[in-house]
Amino acid sequence: MNRFEGRSGPIRLGMVGGGQGAMIGGVHRVAARLDGAFQLVAGALSSTEDKARASAEEVGIAEDRTYIDYIEMAKREARLKDGVEAVSIVVPNHMHLPVAREFLKRGIHVICDKPLTGTLSDAKRLKTAAEKSDALFILTHNYTGYPLVREAQARVARGDLGDIRLVQVEYAQDWLAEAPDADNKQAAWRTDPAKSGAGGATGDIGTHAWNLLRFVTGLAPEAIAADLQSFVPGRTLDDNGHVMLRFEGGARGTLWCSQVAAGRENDLRLRIFGTRAGLEWRQENPNALQITPLGGSTEIITRASAATTAGSRRLTRIPPGHPEGFFEAFANIYGEAAQAIRAARTDAPLPEGVTFPSIADGVEGVAFVEACVRSSKRNAAWVSL
Amino acid sequence: MNRFEGRSGPIRLGMVGGGQGAMIGGVHRVAARLDGAFQLVAGALSSTEDKARASAEEVGIAEDRTYIDYIEMAKREARLKDGVEAVSIVVPNHMHLPVAREFLKRGIHVICDKPLTGTLSDAKRLKTAAEKSDALFILTHNYTGYPLVREAQARVARGDLGDIRLVQVEYAQDWLAEAPDADNKQAAWRTDPAKSGAGGATGDIGTHAWNLLRFVTGLAPEAIAADLQSFVPGRTLDDNGHVMLRFEGGARGTLWCSQVAAGRENDLRLRIFGTRAGLEWRQENPNALQITPLGGSTEIITRASAATTAGSRRLTRIPPGHPEGFFEAFANIYGEAAQAIRAARTDAPLPEGVTFPSIADGVEGVAFVEACVRSSKRNAAWVSL
Amino acid sequence: MNRFEGRSGPIRLGMVGGGQGAMIGGVHRVAARLDGAFQLVAGALSSTEDKARASAEEVGIAEDRTYIDYIEMAKREARLKDGVEAVSIVVPNHMHLPVAREFLKRGIHVICDKPLTGTLSDAKRLKTAAEKSDALFILTHNYTGYPLVREAQARVARGDLGDIRLVQVEYAQDWLAEAPDADNKQAAWRTDPAKSGAGGATGDIGTHAWNLLRFVTGLAPEAIAADLQSFVPGRTLDDNGHVMLRFEGGARGTLWCSQVAAGRENDLRLRIFGTRAGLEWRQENPNALQITPLGGSTEIITRASAATTAGSRRLTRIPPGHPEGFFEAFANIYGEAAQAIRAARTDAPLPEGVTFPSIADGVEGVAFVEACVRSSKRNAAWVSL
Amino acid sequence: MNRFEGRSGPIRLGMVGGGQGAMIGGVHRVAARLDGAFQLVAGALSSTEDKARASAEEVGIAEDRTYIDYIEMAKREARLKDGVEAVSIVVPNHMHLPVAREFLKRGIHVICDKPLTGTLSDAKRLKTAAEKSDALFILTHNYTGYPLVREAQARVARGDLGDIRLVQVEYAQDWLAEAPDADNKQAAWRTDPAKSGAGGATGDIGTHAWNLLRFVTGLAPEAIAADLQSFVPGRTLDDNGHVMLRFEGGARGTLWCSQVAAGRENDLRLRIFGTRAGLEWRQENPNALQITPLGGSTEIITRASAATTAGSRRLTRIPPGHPEGFFEAFANIYGEAAQAIRAARTDAPLPEGVTFPSIADGVEGVAFVEACVRSSKRNAAWVSL
Repeated sequence: MNRFEGRSGPIRLGMVGGGQGAMIGGVHRVAARLDGAFQLVAGALSSTEDKARASAEEVGIAEDRTYIDYIEMAKREARLKDGVEAVSIVVPNHMHLPVAREFLKRGIHVICDKPLTGTLSDAKRLKTAAEKSDALFILTHNYTGYPLVREAQARVARGDLGDIRLVQVEYAQDWLAEAPDADNKQAAWRTDPAKSGAGGATGDIGTHAWNLLRFVTGLAPEAIAADLQSFVPGRTLDDNGHVMLRFEGGARGTLWCSQVAAGRENDLRLRIFGTRAGLEWRQENPNALQITPLGGSTEIITRASAATTAGSRRLTRIPPGHPEGFFEAFANIYGEAAQAIRAARTDAPLPEGVTFPSIADGVEGVAFVEACVRSSKRNAAWVSL
Repeated sequence: MNRFEGRSGPIRLGMVGGGQGAMIGGVHRVAARLDGAFQLVAGALSSTEDKARASAEEVGIAEDRTYIDYIEMAKREARLKDGVEAVSIVVPNHMHLPVAREFLKRGIHVICDKPLTGTLSDAKRLKTAAEKSDALFILTHNYTGYPLVREAQARVARGDLGDIRLVQVEYAQDWLAEAPDADNKQAAWRTDPAKSGAGGATGDIGTHAWNLLRFVTGLAPEAIAADLQSFVPGRTLDDNGHVMLRFEGGARGTLWCSQVAAGRENDLRLRIFGTRAGLEWRQENPNALQITPLGGSTEIITRASAATTAGSRRLTRIPPGHPEGFFEAFANIYGEAAQAIRAARTDAPLPEGVTFPSIADGVEGVAFVEACVRSSKRNAAWVSL
Repeated sequence: MNRFEGRSGPIRLGMVGGGQGAMIGGVHRVAARLDGAFQLVAGALSSTEDKARASAEEVGIAEDRTYIDYIEMAKREARLKDGVEAVSIVVPNHMHLPVAREFLKRGIHVICDKPLTGTLSDAKRLKTAAEKSDALFILTHNYTGYPLVREAQARVARGDLGDIRLVQVEYAQDWLAEAPDADNKQAAWRTDPAKSGAGGATGDIGTHAWNLLRFVTGLAPEAIAADLQSFVPGRTLDDNGHVMLRFEGGARGTLWCSQVAAGRENDLRLRIFGTRAGLEWRQENPNALQITPLGGSTEIITRASAATTAGSRRLTRIPPGHPEGFFEAFANIYGEAAQAIRAARTDAPLPEGVTFPSIADGVEGVAFVEACVRSSKRNAAWVSL
Repeated sequence: MNRFEGRSGPIRLGMVGGGQGAMIGGVHRVAARLDGAFQLVAGALSSTEDKARASAEEVGIAEDRTYIDYIEMAKREARLKDGVEAVSIVVPNHMHLPVAREFLKRGIHVICDKPLTGTLSDAKRLKTAAEKSDALFILTHNYTGYPLVREAQARVARGDLGDIRLVQVEYAQDWLAEAPDADNKQAAWRTDPAKSGAGGATGDIGTHAWNLLRFVTGLAPEAIAADLQSFVPGRTLDDNGHVMLRFEGGARGTLWCSQVAAGRENDLRLRIFGTRAGLEWRQENPNALQITPLGGSTEIITRASAATTAGSRRLTRIPPGHPEGFFEAFANIYGEAAQAIRAARTDAPLPEGVTFPSIADGVEGVAFVEACVRSSKRNAAWVSL
């Protein structure tokens, strides 16, 4: 018998990580709350007791559901009658595996921040753990939650672009353009190989770019050639990467990720060129998608407009011209997760159209990072994927 | 003694209106939920019993807090120990007065959709009711919740633009460019003078534009001259308005509102020109504010960037480049309301910087609409404000 | 017999005005030269002898074709066997009539800068002079020379927009936002009623905006209501104007012209909304025209692209993506003039599609200015056109 | 004695190539004419007699200065007292060397279209010929003629960007996305290795991109790794290229050139990121340059505005807001050439600030193409430059 059968109402959610001073934990909480599908009821928000308690109180977690130790949390929540049905994992990369494993093995669904893990071996172990479990595993590659990313995917899939020839994806930021302040925790662990893994910018944002292009194009990768750099003195992990891409069937592309591109905030862009049309989408203005048929005029598809397909419209909440943004897209991943979790209660199939980044996507992302690092060490030689 | 003294945790919220098929009710619910400051616990979502019950269930309101009659709701909630501390009113304009009055007179804070009322006499009555009450009255002119609107206001106030000479504000949509379908409830009441009031586009969106310019510039209006039209055959209320503006001190401007501007979705724009600089902001891309000093280069101020002032940064949740949108701005009005409501529990003053559209703003908005209508009937003669 | 019958090769052109320190004279010379259809051979570039000679030498006019006095120039050129076939008049507004008259009465074609004259009575006199003459009169409302303005006109004419409901045109600059330096000749005469005429911004740029909307829409004006201002202390002519527009058949609109809009360079924009679609064009990015069908997506029509009509393509010189600008558009007016002048040699009809701003457009422009001034003096009362 | 000493007035110009049906010849003619500095007086516009004669007549070249054979033209013009002082060479790449050599050896200045030649050995031979000659050699990498490209160069040079870390340059078109029509002459020779040389897109537009980045950054190239493709069936030359770049001193970059990017017209973009600021310029909207200091707001520098440096202002003709475009930029190369040619008459040094793409730039461009081809054949191995 399915352990969550019979549950109704908002999904009881736990969280590991995301205490005071963290950034992404707060994002997950807003995303979980936005549509009212989840209720945060338990958490091990920090491994420091005081901070764990203060953080939990701040976000409205009851004292008796506040934990210091995530293993303790997993054990106890699994026993509680109203224990959490899902847990959000928002700890540094190297902790994804140990934390996720504890919940997966107790049948609690996992919603995990990206990249999947710091190393490919960890990623594979986590995949095994997920496969052994009845629980779902959702990876928050949140950019695929944007309605117009879904629109792009749908249009590529139905052939609007013809055969894809070129994919240019880039993700440029500048927040690590200088050595971060000592108290910048987010920067600290992201630039520490022990916590972040082999990739710096490639892991933190390159995996997003990779996942985005994979999601939208569906192209099967063949090989990559990467030239990675660490521009900031003393930095060991890459803060910039240029990657050339080859796909099965002959499509080619490039991926550029950078955290030292002065003046760029969170500039994720995707361009795809096929035999029939080209397409462009930019995260910083996510409510517009440009499509230009070969020999025709550029058409600006706006979110939720009449021109959009059902697959993107189901992920919008408000009419066109009322901009949706980062939180709404992130909430869409949670929304998809919620639908999957509810379906899982009765072992029902996923509702039509529901999709989310999976553990397989996560393994692929870490494999991409490791391939980049390997290629770069070999002077940008081609490395199979 | 303050009746809500001692309350803590999320503010218990009720809602009147916003049942199935409505649009703005859902927006209010997301806005209230986004930061976790409110919890929707009671509602009279429809005056039709079946619909009221189904709607309430859908949004997670318990059966014993589901009402058909808003008066009954106001009475009972006022008596309950854990009764609502605030109510969101999302009914058609003509119902704002009667509904709000019931809650105000029982000391329950009111968060009311705009325009304040359908008529100026209603607006004045509601103002009286609000003044008599200890409860707060918050009007959801949500566009002033955008961080960069706050930024614009702060910069105008500190003199970056010098003396203001010109204000050009416009709000263009096209969703009423044709006679709406019979089952379009939102269109139906907005084009019905009995429910909407004297203004069509002027009331529905002109008041937003007016409120926005008033908020950002602080200019005191002197007179307006309006030329209103009803382009769609059979329509009695205006669906387009051109308004020339005169302000005390010599500034001049124009306001254009339209619901028949083919191709425009929700295109609210504000431009201000002073002796020292000009400024532009557009709601459809709300994360950028352009400021051009006379003789200098245009600077693009992005939301949450280092260039922004504290007054706008306190209303952002996430770093620049991660777009915030309509819901986040709307939630900022709820956030300001929450801070005011919490301060009211102990009769504390408003925390510094907290501000929201008030009943006075609401009266002014309806006065603006009536002035437009009066001017237009007199062939666009100047009418004092 | 037509006096220029038998001529071939570049059209011999004279110029009155446009000496050193002037701006628009140089623009006319580039425009005349760009396509090789004209050759500047004579000129009275200044009424000051030294400056006239120095200016003429600088632009390659031979000494024996250099004049101080435009009447002398008209007389002598009319007698010369290889005398000028056309003259460009680029003097301040109040001199357009006397100068043009001298050439018109001798059968020399006139290409005259805008506005037609400083006063409506002058405009009418000039019209009479033009009608009496066999020579052509071309007014350089150069913005109608942009290919995508022609495209807009063609699309409106063929009904792509349906019935026009709204026209919003604006022309904003900031170069007169402060009192100009004493040695700024261009500013000096433009702010001097004796030279500029009754209108300041309305005359200098409002007439361009008016001509643009008239050209593209073809709407017949009914009445206007104008509120004009002189923001800069000591200025007598308007430097900003807000104008509400009524057209026959029910279309409405606004025209805003300003030379004190801080941060605006030469920001001429046209927006038209019909029952079927809306359209937008902006001079500062003239190679794109946006059209949005009601209920459809915005289409970006680029200059010279496959989507354009023959009427706009005939005025482009280079493939899309290679931006054309102000000079090319201005040169298109000269190009149309050249075709007309060549046709006139044999009294042939104008080649199909050739069109240019006429003396009638010029009279209308000055009438528009005077109507604005009259309306504004009467507190923005409606004035018929 | 300098053979052109004593000449004055417009520079007498000849042209080889550019007959009817050609595109770039017409561009050169407009560019030469725009500022009145050149006069086209002789030409061998086609090697087909009828076409040579018809083309020459069409552009106003006298019969006795019309040639079929460029060698004949070089010989005779060199003997004429009023023979051409400079010649524009606008023939397919493989003919640049033989044509240019004839004029160079007779002391006639050469203005040559790019790329310099089809092969590197030809390029070196042409360099030798130019070095032996007293005549100037100007290569029309026209994009460096844009004022804001000069502005970018000046700002990089004075350190506004700090140390350059990254350069991303791209040039995307789609006009060769399908096999061209049989009668498309421009496409025909560009896709024929015998005429175009080893590079397709790399030669035709990649060299522009390369020259642009070299001009603006001044970075010394170290090595490149290129992955070239020929997407259109049957095409032998590359129609797309991805190139990773390494510069001396540690800067890195990418260059993407494509003639199969569906929906792109002439999309040349340059982005540079340094330790202090980032910069972006896009050819399709060439009147704006974006610069973002690290930690600051993006500033939009407009052409001819007060913010620009003298080096870019000297190449503009008209105030900001009046867009200049492709022809004006091309004319700037001709303008620089004119100044150099005039200085050469008296062996005077180049006037300050005058600069143009040289034979050395041309050799470097062809070397870049050959390096790309070589690298690509070796599976994108790094190739030194």
